[in-house]
Amino acid sequence: MSDYRVDLGEISFNLRHVADLDGLAKLEEFEYVEPDVVDQVLAEAARFAEEVIAPLNRVGDTEGARRLDDGSVATPTGFREAYDAYVQAGWGALSIDPEYGGGGFPHLVGLAVEEMFTAACMSWSLCPLLTQGAINMLSAHGTEDQKARYLPPMVTGRWTGTMNLTEPQAGSDLGAVAARALPQPDGSYRLVGTKIFITYGEHDLADNIVHLVLARTPDAPPGTRGISCFLVPKYLPDEHPSSAGVRNDVRCVSIEHKLGIHASPTCVMAYGDGEGAVGFLVGEENGGMRAMFTMMNHARLSVGLEGVAIAERSYQQALAYAHERRQGRAPGAPATESSAIIDHPDVRRMLLDMRSSTSAMRGLAYRNAEAIDRAGNGSDAEQRQAAGEQAALLTPLTKAWATDMGCELVSVGLQVHGGMGFIEETGSAQHYRDARIAPIYEGTNGIQSADLVGRKLTMRDGGAVRDHLAHIEATVEALDGTGELASVGRHLEAALQATGEASEWLLAAGLAQRLAGADAYLKMLAITTGAAALTDGALAATRLGDPDAAADRAVLARFFAANRLSGVPGLLAAVTEPADDLAAATQRILA
Amino acid sequence: MSDYRVDLGEISFNLRHVADLDGLAKLEEFEYVEPDVVDQVLAEAARFAEEVIAPLNRVGDTEGARRLDDGSVATPTGFREAYDAYVQAGWGALSIDPEYGGGGFPHLVGLAVEEMFTAACMSWSLCPLLTQGAINMLSAHGTEDQKARYLPPMVTGRWTGTMNLTEPQAGSDLGAVAARALPQPDGSYRLVGTKIFITYGEHDLADNIVHLVLARTPDAPPGTRGISCFLVPKYLPDEHPSSAGVRNDVRCVSIEHKLGIHASPTCVMAYGDGEGAVGFLVGEENGGMRAMFTMMNHARLSVGLEGVAIAERSYQQALAYAHERRQGRAPGAPATESSAIIDHPDVRRMLLDMRSSTSAMRGLAYRNAEAIDRAGNGSDAEQRQAAGEQAALLTPLTKAWATDMGCELVSVGLQVHGGMGFIEETGSAQHYRDARIAPIYEGTNGIQSADLVGRKLTMRDGGAVRDHLAHIEATVEALDGTGELASVGRHLEAALQATGEASEWLLAAGLAQRLAGADAYLKMLAITTGAAALTDGALAATRLGDPDAAADRAVLARFFAANRLSGVPGLLAAVTEPADDLAAATQRILA
Repeated sequence: MSDYRVDLGEISFNLRHVADLDGLAKLEEFEYVEPDVVDQVLAEAARFAEEVIAPLNRVGDTEGARRLDDGSVATPTGFREAYDAYVQAGWGALSIDPEYGGGGFPHLVGLAVEEMFTAACMSWSLCPLLTQGAINMLSAHGTEDQKARYLPPMVTGRWTGTMNLTEPQAGSDLGAVAARALPQPDGSYRLVGTKIFITYGEHDLADNIVHLVLARTPDAPPGTRGISCFLVPKYLPDEHPSSAGVRNDVRCVSIEHKLGIHASPTCVMAYGDGEGAVGFLVGEENGGMRAMFTMMNHARLSVGLEGVAIAERSYQQALAYAHERRQGRAPGAPATESSAIIDHPDVRRMLLDMRSSTSAMRGLAYRNAEAIDRAGNGSDAEQRQAAGEQAALLTPLTKAWATDMGCELVSVGLQVHGGMGFIEETGSAQHYRDARIAPIYEGTNGIQSADLVGRKLTMRDGGAVRDHLAHIEATVEALDGTGELASVGRHLEAALQATGEASEWLLAAGLAQRLAGADAYLKMLAITTGAAALTDGALAATRLGDPDAAADRAVLARFFAANRLSGVPGLLAAVTEPADDLAAATQRILA
Repeated sequence: MSDYRVDLGEISFNLRHVADLDGLAKLEEFEYVEPDVVDQVLAEAARFAEEVIAPLNRVGDTEGARRLDDGSVATPTGFREAYDAYVQAGWGALSIDPEYGGGGFPHLVGLAVEEMFTAACMSWSLCPLLTQGAINMLSAHGTEDQKARYLPPMVTGRWTGTMNLTEPQAGSDLGAVAARALPQPDGSYRLVGTKIFITYGEHDLADNIVHLVLARTPDAPPGTRGISCFLVPKYLPDEHPSSAGVRNDVRCVSIEHKLGIHASPTCVMAYGDGEGAVGFLVGEENGGMRAMFTMMNHARLSVGLEGVAIAERSYQQALAYAHERRQGRAPGAPATESSAIIDHPDVRRMLLDMRSSTSAMRGLAYRNAEAIDRAGNGSDAEQRQAAGEQAALLTPLTKAWATDMGCELVSVGLQVHGGMGFIEETGSAQHYRDARIAPIYEGTNGIQSADLVGRKLTMRDGGAVRDHLAHIEATVEALDGTGELASVGRHLEAALQATGEASEWLLAAGLAQRLAGADAYLKMLAITTGAAALTDGALAATRLGDPDAAADRAVLARFFAANRLSGVPGLLAAVTEPADDLAAATQRILA
């Protein structure tokens, strides 16, 4: 059942008229990124997603990844062939720095392609995703020798990468990491410890797997200040660069039985069954957390995008079903025949909620990617600094809001199917199960909201948030209070007002109060920012002079404003009021 | 893993101080319902739920129901023994009319017990639940002979019951039912047709299964006006009343592979493989829909209660995990040790959201049951009429809101577990999967909101809703704007104002507009009603003079008001604004 079709029009519109791809292409690093080349890349990626990856989604769920007795992990039927085709086509290199053999496209373009691959098959897409993260990490912190040895095969995709952070006692709290790294006379280390929840920690898609592992050296200080990052390849490359060699002392000892993403092996990895796994320090000793933070925006944005992608896929399936399924008679329909359920107002409401919300989430995610691109490129240091702030602010919004919404929207997609939605063969239930991981991994959404109120809101004593809200205020002013977007302006203004008030309240509050209101505040800021993206899209469509597109984008902006944005002012109470009760609700209520 | 403990204090408080069990017990039908007898029943039911049913939950999920080659259906290990114990203890008879061998307790008490059994194992509880529905139907519409023959073994539970409504082309649209019933010279019928999604249509728990089947007689008018209800037993009782006899021509031809409630067999039933299944008309010919409607409040309330029950179970599990799991350092905690995650404000927020919302949903559901009891009992016709209206109004609220919230809250419960929540062995994911059916069956939540704006809001031209809101206004007045519930009064007043405005807008609107705003309106009315139940509970606790209980109930009411009730005014826009865009969003956007 390969029913996913890339909505190239929507993706391209968001790249160019919500995010600013054309503006990015004016930066010297992206000078050669010609619009028609981007279009070709997107069209080719869409074909690949639809024809090669999307057919894996269902078989991946039903077969799942299997760990065999010899410790190897078999991926489902077709995964290997699709991965070979991915390597062959060079998709992994798209937005990697040309210095390391990459295509040098903006991350923004890479994200659009990532959306397609993730929507096509989320489980399959995680292997390339983790590899991209490992490439980013090594590019930024690896030695020249490490880069020369590992990056070329990772950029082609012949070798894949993993991130090994979590241990049984160290989940959200990485300060509790206990894996040990013992220095050897030759400058290498021997790693000993157990890592859990390692995505694609073992599999049969590639020749080698490059694990990036957080561990402690013998004299490391306690907590997060004593964590270092190590590169531990499954096979130790011999002197021939980029060829796999001797098997290292790292093994997958089991894989998890999970609610969703069944095809993605979630591994328990044992380092050092014998003398310890050979590893190499990446970056500074005790600098592991700092190194992780440099790639955190990328990784968290990618997970946020999973919410967008799976909501899009679920929407397409629900839409098709709503056109096909006939039940009852819609208002105004002829008495003699049953109506397609899409003609029932409540079904249409569900679909338009999915469509408009997904578009708002996409706008947020793409702008987030643009900010990351602008933070790392261009010659104007001040602009890079401002973009860096923006990326830092938007990332927890995209990660948490888009993944929470992803779960909510795939549930709506399931509901559109009525009883058939609950039947596994329909496929809608798989989206419901798969989507549920995204609010958890790469920092739970609670960690995201804590990051927002703890590190992001406080940037420049609130200056970054105030600038961001002022930017949205400009959108309200552009609406001018009249015309067909007048209701959007009203809701956006009210949401801005409330979000500004919440920001100032939190800035003046103590840490426990800030954390108590963090989740509601993140929602306020994210919904308002997503609505601004939709609204800017509607304004851009009007400027482009295509009346159909302008009318459609106005509908999306208006519906989202009435349906979701209108809820923002009500969230202010959830930011400011519960702190005392939360602190008090201990002994008896939550006993 | 039987970690469910009945919260007898919470259940008993809601029975007596949110709903009015003592007032009900003054009605002559319930004169013999002594408080201490109720307490004994609840305590005994709690023991049964915890010790006998709860241990089935996990094994039921992992084993699931299995259809064997001979067409029989095997339930998971332990289901049969627990069901035998249920029959032995006579739980099925609790709130059945004594005329038919029942215990004669109010439905309200039955609902409290139902909550325990459902929380203990939702899949298992569905078999008794469907049987209760069939008993209600037969009690109200069966002939004396049918009642004498079928009710006694159904009331004990030795025979179970099913409801056969859905066909492949007839889901929400029962007017499309095509099963045929051919009259026979002896006054019986022969039924031919296929029914789908039949819960416990076949199983190994009981000696006989009494199917209530919607079908058409040869000259029936089209649509819902031509549907009749038939009793079709799996075994035709012989002349010895209540003993099973000859096998009837009805078979389970397959069972569904579902997202959740794996242990509950969802059957495709084939009627009339040979000469047709022998059936008997229940009620009037062509009166099948009317007969179904008489039991709809009961059934829908029971499904709404599933949202309460599974949220309660998920909450208990999340709470236990949050006390046990240590990660990071909460604000104010000593630097040297990690904190239990319950000490982190955001985790506490999730738990208090679960706790307060579940309590609000429970209050709504119990008051709904009380209204059903008052509508069917007592000597004052005017009071019965008013209670009937109230039951009609509250039922779609309980069914839709409590099941939507059930899904939302079990997702919160999963989130509290972090990565462990996504692992099936943890058990939280099962609640997430199981809960998802409740918004779908017994009338999708879209059908509930259509019922609310189509049939319920319009009762007495809006008089019933206005009376209901006036009743909540009295609660606001009792708060008097001061004291520790002042913030609750503010939010409740704002919610009432907005809900009243939405009501009047909808009453003046056309059908398509009403349907477009139905979902948001249902949420407004339900959240406001749930908040009023919580608030009345807080006021009652104060009157009772127990300062701890009063303080705790005030926390629940305040937190729910800040966290959920505060969102009601924002929903007004979702009621009144989207209709035109929904109607317009056709060709291009939702193409």
